[in-house]
Amino acid sequence: MAGKEVAERLLGELRGRVEARRARGLEPPLLASVHLAIDSPFKFYLAQQERAAAGAGIGFRSVAVTSPAELATRLSELNADRSVAGVLVEHPLPVGFDFHGAVDLLRPEKDIDGIGAVNLGRLAAGRPRHVPAVALAARALLEHYDVPVAGRRVLVIGRSATVGAPLALLLLLRGKRGDATVTVAHSQTPELEKQLAAAEVVVSCAGLPGLLHRGNTPRSVAVVDVGLSSVPDPAKPGSHRPAGDAAPDLEGWVEALSPVPGGVGPVTVAELMNNLVNAREWLDRDGS
Amino acid sequence: MAGKEVAERLLGELRGRVEARRARGLEPPLLASVHLAIDSPFKFYLAQQERAAAGAGIGFRSVAVTSPAELATRLSELNADRSVAGVLVEHPLPVGFDFHGAVDLLRPEKDIDGIGAVNLGRLAAGRPRHVPAVALAARALLEHYDVPVAGRRVLVIGRSATVGAPLALLLLLRGKRGDATVTVAHSQTPELEKQLAAAEVVVSCAGLPGLLHRGNTPRSVAVVDVGLSSVPDPAKPGSHRPAGDAAPDLEGWVEALSPVPGGVGPVTVAELMNNLVNAREWLDRDGS
Repeated sequence: MAGKEVAERLLGELRGRVEARRARGLEPPLLASVHLAIDSPFKFYLAQQERAAAGAGIGFRSVAVTSPAELATRLSELNADRSVAGVLVEHPLPVGFDFHGAVDLLRPEKDIDGIGAVNLGRLAAGRPRHVPAVALAARALLEHYDVPVAGRRVLVIGRSATVGAPLALLLLLRGKRGDATVTVAHSQTPELEKQLAAAEVVVSCAGLPGLLHRGNTPRSVAVVDVGLSSVPDPAKPGSHRPAGDAAPDLEGWVEALSPVPGGVGPVTVAELMNNLVNAREWLDRDGS
Repeated sequence: MAGKEVAERLLGELRGRVEARRARGLEPPLLASVHLAIDSPFKFYLAQQERAAAGAGIGFRSVAVTSPAELATRLSELNADRSVAGVLVEHPLPVGFDFHGAVDLLRPEKDIDGIGAVNLGRLAAGRPRHVPAVALAARALLEHYDVPVAGRRVLVIGRSATVGAPLALLLLLRGKRGDATVTVAHSQTPELEKQLAAAEVVVSCAGLPGLLHRGNTPRSVAVVDVGLSSVPDPAKPGSHRPAGDAAPDLEGWVEALSPVPGGVGPVTVAELMNNLVNAREWLDRDGS
């Protein structure tokens, strides 16, 4: 699995950085994950985060909240808590909560998701600090498959604040890891097929299973599949399995194709841990 | 001139809003423009800003600085000064100054250029407050020429933090005034001609006179020219004239073409004044 391999390499590097801190007598970086005090699909991500943190030698604290007011109070406390390097906020949150408003309460250094206004704005201005981990993961997978983007036509499908938009901005950055000619397509793009025909690289973040298939996707493209949906599992009637945007028939058809599951998912968690260790180092440097 | 017409309409609406404030006994909104205490090409923009402000009933204060430290001090004072609705910072600044760092010192409500990290980030996240005036001006000109963008292929040439990137993000926003399928091309795009051939709308922000001409630009596109360069004037040997990215032969060739000068320039100044009045209203609403 491409994703596991890339994630393991990243986490291995991270373990080295955390070890080096420990050798200097410093505490391990601490991640706080803020979530609703109810059962939700986020519980799966919580467990995944805790496991990845443990694997990289990173401390983990789960913070449960029950109301928007409590969320704001907890975030303010976590901002002030010098032992906390980074904070994640469950997403999406139910009606009544303002996710983006909550993230904007965080100190930008602790917004390791990179989706607060300051971090997104720095990315848009070509001065990135924390970049959303899923965008970094898509780039890491392209590099894993030896797919260059500089000077090439990259199609990003999806324009969400948390995935599509930051990914487009990341691939537009100056330098060898960016410099792509980026097209952003989305639900209002009338002829996706035309855009696919013109692309050399496709990163699909639509969340529409089967969106890309042999009928609309040229053999010459490399595809990173960032879609994640839940579809009925024909092998186990009554149960579901995860699916990306690529139809099963795309395998063996395109130049490269990252799998779902086992592609962008594990790399995103590793990149998130990388952002956390960066956050700790930035906070230490600023003496805060 | 298309630009003058659009600008006049915008400024007329603004005069109405400022008048309505006056009728309620409120002071006119005040714009502070911060610049170096030396002669620079910015002096031209200063005069232009002051004239536009006067025309819309907006107060104007020119603030000269001589060093990065003084710049930071003045910005902090202007942040705290409740009579000041918005602040502009001269751009570009000489070596030794950090333009983006300076703008990030401003309260986002007063960053009427919309290029501080918070404002750019809100735009990238689909929650815009202040949007860079030049991007709003390009959109206003497209609307003036009755050129829709929703569901259409728009090519933005240029990826700068101040022009190309915010324009691309603006045209990607959900809704009838956005919803474009946006491609961003730039200096590392190998075959601009291919991108032009695939476009329905082109907004050129390269600053390269003659970049677009009959040889590479299809007749079917509409072009908004955001380029602004200074070229030798053949009519007056030894002197210079302003030029956009479009070669003179593009006129009468494409569906629509905004002129330079007299296109995006005056509309940008009007949109800037619009941002200023918005800033005043937001500050009043927040009681600050």
